[in-house]
Amino acid sequence: MRDWRRGAAVLLALGTVAGVGAAWGDERVLAHVDTEAEAATNLAQDIWSLAELGYQEEGSSRRLQGYLAERGFAIDTGAVNIPTAFVASAGSGAPVIGILAEFDALPGLSQAAVPRRQPLQSKGAGHACGHHLFGAASAAAGAAVAAWLEETGRTGTVRVYGTPAEEGGSGKVYMTRAGLFDDVDVVLHWHPSDRNDASPYSSTANKSGRFTFHGTAAHAAAAPERGRSALDGVEAMNFMVNLMREHVPQESRIHYVITDGGDAPNIVPEQAQVYYYVRHPQAERVAELFERVVKAAEAGALGTGTRMEYEVMHGNYPLLPNDVLARLVHDNLERLGGIEYDAAEHAFAREILATLDGDMPPVDSAGEVQSFAFRQNMGSTDVGDVSWTVPTVGFGTATWVPGTPAHSWQAVAAGGTSIGHKGMLLAARLLAVTTVDLLENPELRAAARDEFEGRRGPDFEYRALLGDREPPLDYRR
Amino acid sequence: MRDWRRGAAVLLALGTVAGVGAAWGDERVLAHVDTEAEAATNLAQDIWSLAELGYQEEGSSRRLQGYLAERGFAIDTGAVNIPTAFVASAGSGAPVIGILAEFDALPGLSQAAVPRRQPLQSKGAGHACGHHLFGAASAAAGAAVAAWLEETGRTGTVRVYGTPAEEGGSGKVYMTRAGLFDDVDVVLHWHPSDRNDASPYSSTANKSGRFTFHGTAAHAAAAPERGRSALDGVEAMNFMVNLMREHVPQESRIHYVITDGGDAPNIVPEQAQVYYYVRHPQAERVAELFERVVKAAEAGALGTGTRMEYEVMHGNYPLLPNDVLARLVHDNLERLGGIEYDAAEHAFAREILATLDGDMPPVDSAGEVQSFAFRQNMGSTDVGDVSWTVPTVGFGTATWVPGTPAHSWQAVAAGGTSIGHKGMLLAARLLAVTTVDLLENPELRAAARDEFEGRRGPDFEYRALLGDREPPLDYRR
Amino acid sequence: MRDWRRGAAVLLALGTVAGVGAAWGDERVLAHVDTEAEAATNLAQDIWSLAELGYQEEGSSRRLQGYLAERGFAIDTGAVNIPTAFVASAGSGAPVIGILAEFDALPGLSQAAVPRRQPLQSKGAGHACGHHLFGAASAAAGAAVAAWLEETGRTGTVRVYGTPAEEGGSGKVYMTRAGLFDDVDVVLHWHPSDRNDASPYSSTANKSGRFTFHGTAAHAAAAPERGRSALDGVEAMNFMVNLMREHVPQESRIHYVITDGGDAPNIVPEQAQVYYYVRHPQAERVAELFERVVKAAEAGALGTGTRMEYEVMHGNYPLLPNDVLARLVHDNLERLGGIEYDAAEHAFAREILATLDGDMPPVDSAGEVQSFAFRQNMGSTDVGDVSWTVPTVGFGTATWVPGTPAHSWQAVAAGGTSIGHKGMLLAARLLAVTTVDLLENPELRAAARDEFEGRRGPDFEYRALLGDREPPLDYRR
Amino acid sequence: MRDWRRGAAVLLALGTVAGVGAAWGDERVLAHVDTEAEAATNLAQDIWSLAELGYQEEGSSRRLQGYLAERGFAIDTGAVNIPTAFVASAGSGAPVIGILAEFDALPGLSQAAVPRRQPLQSKGAGHACGHHLFGAASAAAGAAVAAWLEETGRTGTVRVYGTPAEEGGSGKVYMTRAGLFDDVDVVLHWHPSDRNDASPYSSTANKSGRFTFHGTAAHAAAAPERGRSALDGVEAMNFMVNLMREHVPQESRIHYVITDGGDAPNIVPEQAQVYYYVRHPQAERVAELFERVVKAAEAGALGTGTRMEYEVMHGNYPLLPNDVLARLVHDNLERLGGIEYDAAEHAFAREILATLDGDMPPVDSAGEVQSFAFRQNMGSTDVGDVSWTVPTVGFGTATWVPGTPAHSWQAVAAGGTSIGHKGMLLAARLLAVTTVDLLENPELRAAARDEFEGRRGPDFEYRALLGDREPPLDYRR
Repeated sequence: MRDWRRGAAVLLALGTVAGVGAAWGDERVLAHVDTEAEAATNLAQDIWSLAELGYQEEGSSRRLQGYLAERGFAIDTGAVNIPTAFVASAGSGAPVIGILAEFDALPGLSQAAVPRRQPLQSKGAGHACGHHLFGAASAAAGAAVAAWLEETGRTGTVRVYGTPAEEGGSGKVYMTRAGLFDDVDVVLHWHPSDRNDASPYSSTANKSGRFTFHGTAAHAAAAPERGRSALDGVEAMNFMVNLMREHVPQESRIHYVITDGGDAPNIVPEQAQVYYYVRHPQAERVAELFERVVKAAEAGALGTGTRMEYEVMHGNYPLLPNDVLARLVHDNLERLGGIEYDAAEHAFAREILATLDGDMPPVDSAGEVQSFAFRQNMGSTDVGDVSWTVPTVGFGTATWVPGTPAHSWQAVAAGGTSIGHKGMLLAARLLAVTTVDLLENPELRAAARDEFEGRRGPDFEYRALLGDREPPLDYRR
Repeated sequence: MRDWRRGAAVLLALGTVAGVGAAWGDERVLAHVDTEAEAATNLAQDIWSLAELGYQEEGSSRRLQGYLAERGFAIDTGAVNIPTAFVASAGSGAPVIGILAEFDALPGLSQAAVPRRQPLQSKGAGHACGHHLFGAASAAAGAAVAAWLEETGRTGTVRVYGTPAEEGGSGKVYMTRAGLFDDVDVVLHWHPSDRNDASPYSSTANKSGRFTFHGTAAHAAAAPERGRSALDGVEAMNFMVNLMREHVPQESRIHYVITDGGDAPNIVPEQAQVYYYVRHPQAERVAELFERVVKAAEAGALGTGTRMEYEVMHGNYPLLPNDVLARLVHDNLERLGGIEYDAAEHAFAREILATLDGDMPPVDSAGEVQSFAFRQNMGSTDVGDVSWTVPTVGFGTATWVPGTPAHSWQAVAAGGTSIGHKGMLLAARLLAVTTVDLLENPELRAAARDEFEGRRGPDFEYRALLGDREPPLDYRR
Repeated sequence: MRDWRRGAAVLLALGTVAGVGAAWGDERVLAHVDTEAEAATNLAQDIWSLAELGYQEEGSSRRLQGYLAERGFAIDTGAVNIPTAFVASAGSGAPVIGILAEFDALPGLSQAAVPRRQPLQSKGAGHACGHHLFGAASAAAGAAVAAWLEETGRTGTVRVYGTPAEEGGSGKVYMTRAGLFDDVDVVLHWHPSDRNDASPYSSTANKSGRFTFHGTAAHAAAAPERGRSALDGVEAMNFMVNLMREHVPQESRIHYVITDGGDAPNIVPEQAQVYYYVRHPQAERVAELFERVVKAAEAGALGTGTRMEYEVMHGNYPLLPNDVLARLVHDNLERLGGIEYDAAEHAFAREILATLDGDMPPVDSAGEVQSFAFRQNMGSTDVGDVSWTVPTVGFGTATWVPGTPAHSWQAVAAGGTSIGHKGMLLAARLLAVTTVDLLENPELRAAARDEFEGRRGPDFEYRALLGDREPPLDYRR
Repeated sequence: MRDWRRGAAVLLALGTVAGVGAAWGDERVLAHVDTEAEAATNLAQDIWSLAELGYQEEGSSRRLQGYLAERGFAIDTGAVNIPTAFVASAGSGAPVIGILAEFDALPGLSQAAVPRRQPLQSKGAGHACGHHLFGAASAAAGAAVAAWLEETGRTGTVRVYGTPAEEGGSGKVYMTRAGLFDDVDVVLHWHPSDRNDASPYSSTANKSGRFTFHGTAAHAAAAPERGRSALDGVEAMNFMVNLMREHVPQESRIHYVITDGGDAPNIVPEQAQVYYYVRHPQAERVAELFERVVKAAEAGALGTGTRMEYEVMHGNYPLLPNDVLARLVHDNLERLGGIEYDAAEHAFAREILATLDGDMPPVDSAGEVQSFAFRQNMGSTDVGDVSWTVPTVGFGTATWVPGTPAHSWQAVAAGGTSIGHKGMLLAARLLAVTTVDLLENPELRAAARDEFEGRRGPDFEYRALLGDREPPLDYRR
């Protein structure tokens, strides 16, 4: 283990002077991003308005594909059995740099671009995780790199991966499992945020399942002794999982909602269902914990005279960090700098802040870049599986008012304004210059690969946590 | 207490010879039922097809009102604040005999009139409690009595009460509370069944409530310590109620479904809801038990750092039996006899029976009348409240294949065939002759009133179990 | 089934005139009871003072055996593997009438013979179920019958069964299982009570078990994730049993205490135990319910990563009533009459009543005999198993102040005074005259046997609910 | 906050050269420890054999006081209301160095000094935390320092604090609350261990309570509806606390045992009790969490119709580390070195290791000193409260076979052999030389005080977590 770390450090020291310094010189790609700015903004707004849920992003996916096709990308939509997934390629030959593009929305978070709670549509969806910006920035960066490749005549390929259903659908896992990243040198991703940060970080592994219990219906007043309540099975399972919380590693996370709690009080419930997520920073721990949760479900059925079956819904690896790549992105981000608000944006930000509780960072922190340090996030992402297959790096830019949590209406609101657009364009610029750096510097790619191999270990073999299941295309219906 | 019982017995003995015997002589009213048979069958089928849920029975109510208006009834729809309730009157002056008419369907039980499970509409409603027959038979009996009143020139009023939302909506309670039965001498009702039975019986009192818990949302992986799960509140309440089961009178019934178990596993649920029914043969016991359930809800909130509020949804008194009236109906039913199946009906019955488990009565029991004996049903009905306000009597006829439970698709199926229609017409005939008996015999009415007063006790004062709440017109939306 | 009932009724009618009337004539046996009165009172007081727990009643058993041996009884103590059980016989040949004698005390109920709470010994045992009176009255009745047999020269045998550990030890079940009652014609028993009652009655079948869970100990603060709490297993089992309460016949009773809840909070409990009773008026239902409880225990282990084993502790059949015998005893009791208090006893009773809550019967009700009607008790007794093996009858006399519940300190107190002694002597008289009636009247014995056979049914085969286990001689240690 | 850290670092750098280096020169005190070796060993063995539980350590306390009095210490036993607490002083004037001495044993861990499970006494107590060694080493070190003070004529006081009931009794908290440490410059403590380690470390704050529920007794079969189970209250409380586990900071620890789970299954439990510990690295968090646990207890009572009261049993602050002092002790420990086993000890160690599971350190690690690094222990100690009152430092020596966990019979066994004695003497030597260092170096004391003040913060005010309660002198009875 120590070898790659030392090697990486040495190379980084060199890199800062030679490789990266040299790469940065080619600012031409930024001009191409500027050219795309208006189109990318429109693209983002269209997806924001569509606000389509996981695996149902037909309009959003079509819009992204159209944008890229117009800019000369070849589109492949047949690679996995997911109608809204695609791989768009430009340039030719090695090296191959991939850029991920997400575009799914979240249910129940419909919201206008105003600094107060105002749904556009009752119970409608909204881009509370900013994936409309994610998709648009990645597409714009891809377009800029494609133009740069053509302009400079360099060899190399840029690919934009249209990856659906990040929110609980694990779209990228199916794409990883299908081998779509196997020939890529480095994968770049980013995420909308309330700050600009390119530190190395990890996330938690996650495995989810729906546990369905089947009981025996009976009139709850006339013959309750003939019934066996499926909801009893759910509650017994939950009880035992809640007892289990004392006896798991403290970094574990287990959470559930009851998705079917019976139909009517006067009928002993024949069916009931509970939906679980199980997380931990390590994939092996998650696999073990999930098995214990399954045991609790089996016990819930056994002890209540019901029957249980479960369906694994999704599963993600933790993000495998890469210090070589993170340092490269961080240095680029520092050069590009943060985001300045104009007066209207300041006013909007102040109104948003008034709706949030807790200690808030200053609004001007949107203009800063966070210091470089490893961070362990407790959330999960399907980029995790990609990151165990190919050296991968990500970052965040301030697309939301500082202090805004993800999955909030405040995130939807800011994402529909110029605040979101500025963050998106910064992301596009950072993706573009970093891609060019990686295309131009074989040493960087090699150092990233060394670190990647070292972290995975020699015996690593990728096996999706979600097993062999097919994509749950209807999980949001 | 002993006085009225003895008095009733004496009067009954006389009644059997004199009053009732005399009344039965007037078979003219049965001819009027026969005249209505076809129209009543069409009426029932229309309501069966509409299959409208509680308080949403616009079409069904309109159809019933139209039928009665055409036959000279005066319709009053403004009496309570329920759009689908009505009171239809014919004749004039005292005595006043009321006939109840229900017409609401049950969710999720859509079914074709075939002897195998075949929904007409996915997740649609169906008449699994046969209220289409209930409404149509009562309307037809009312029409026949109205014709008889006109034909004979007798003084007296027949009223058909259109009572919505029996299934969990307690429509009759609001009508009772508003005094709509205060000037009635006797109320008749009936219910579709798998047998012909006019025994005296009671039901359980019932009080239901929705308990909504409010917690604090948080990202379930990133900051679970900042969240307080509303679902925890629900589960804690349920836990304590389940412990309580050991410490309630054994005839109590408490049952619940979780109607909101959280939105998504990765968010600590901000809101959750559980829907409870509490029953016992005595209304006072139900009031006490409900208070204990409320305490468990308060405790669930206290112990999980959440907030709780609840809404009483409905509440029914137990049926107050009346032996004088039950004996009258029973004797009439024995004279009218049961139902004979033709070959096609026999074949249908055999196919239905093949789909049911347990010890089944013989198909030919549809032709019999059950012996006279008191029966305690554990189910509930909003007729209960009527029965504590005015002397009330009910019965069942075999509208379903013997062995069919209520609230089953098999009940919907049979209710849409000639089996259901035959049972309905028997009910209409029994309602009609009994109404005429009651119009003609003041001694019967007085004896029924004596028994009624004796059973209620001198200090009884009616107070709806559901309190002052307004009808929950959207409880099925 | 109807045959034996009709037969019994016929015979009873005859019996009242002929058989029983004739039997009663022989009042000589009552004189023998009077002769024993003082010795019996001393015997009772000695056992009251010893207050020995189940299977540890060495002193009490010895005292009873000595009393009977002195009066010519042959004592057999080797019949079952229980040191404190015995069978004492007098007379010879058929018929054989058995009289049961209990003598075990209850833990924690030590109490002086005063009308206020005053333990004789901290945490000591006390005769809160009056078994000291039970044993002494039965022995005295046996002695009187033995003297009568000798005096009259009649053929016949009277047996006094010394039956230990009624309170949770099921001593009689082992004696029944060993065939000790197989050649007996009728068995008589009685029980201390707050009233005089010889109605036919039944009790609940009962099966109990200790469920022991084994987990993995760990430091609860330093390494809770390595521990698996045995107490979690207990709580999970209990949770599922509490859910089960909704889905059992309403006459079921399930109750438990946690007999081992872990040693110290800072150690994850390696062992924990819960002790369950399961009851229902029918033995088959109890067997089924117990299996469901075992399933819940297995599920509790499965879902918490622990291991479970259980030991059936005791098991009783319900009492099989016998109307023929009950009527005989009831008539005898009416002739003997109730109990009159003197002034001191009245004063004692008033003081006792002041310590009790609820609606109390009048003190003078000790002088009455309760009316004859079937009663279903929800408690259990190991006399149940005897009653399914041989026609059996029991009754109660007022040994406690009216209104006193069993298992109370008030019962211990009265049982140590002349109130208890008077009740005991009434019981001895009633046992004695009834035994003589049965010895003298073959028709009575035959009618009782007919009813017995009819109630058991032709296919009945006795199988102890506690299975093959040996007596738990240390269950009270 | 940064000031003291920088200051400490500077002083440490100096200290290593000047202060500490100079102090070490005075090896004379080690000769005094050697003189005490045999007596100290006998002292330890006597306390090991007494094995007295918290607040019942009359013999052990007397033996320690006698040892110290013989060596010229003045003994004060009246300072707090605890019969077995004492303060022994030698020397005079400032500075004052305190040495803590514990001596209580643990229940259920009686064990001979042999390498296999062999209790000396069934259910007896044993020194499974090595407090016999703790007390003896501290007394011996105190004696050696007293001799050194006399020999050298230096001004200064050494105090040995006899601190009872560390295991759950929080003896030191009452001594701290009474101000017994207010005039001390530095407090030293140590702990038996399976390794030699003088790193700075912290522990968790801890607050414990017994929650007693009061219900209504009733016959569980005859009248369960009249009972309210106190055990229901306990189980409801536990349920809500187990739900709470998801919503507490992950470093929290909450654990419980049920100390009273009811008397007999056939009685609805009138009383039940559960004993909770609540921990977290920060005292404020523990106070908050304990309040939430109390809320769950109140809710458990509210929701089950029972009544609850609770008694705070003990409460400890976390250890406040002191790097200045820890570095001093660590350097001294490195100079003194670890422990070498002879052949017999090696054989004993191998037999012990065969009884332990998991990854074991090598036996020879008893000869090593662990590297210097901060450690967060999740266990708790009442030294915590001392450490927030006066600069405090502790360490461990290998008194147990490497790999032995505390609170195991293996710890009792080794503690009764020469392995334990060697570890104890190393501890005595390290305490003695460190005390002399501190007596001789005012700069060290000042630096330790600076760090102490900095870590506490300017606004700190000591308030015992256990509040105003008096010592629970009978908590182990």
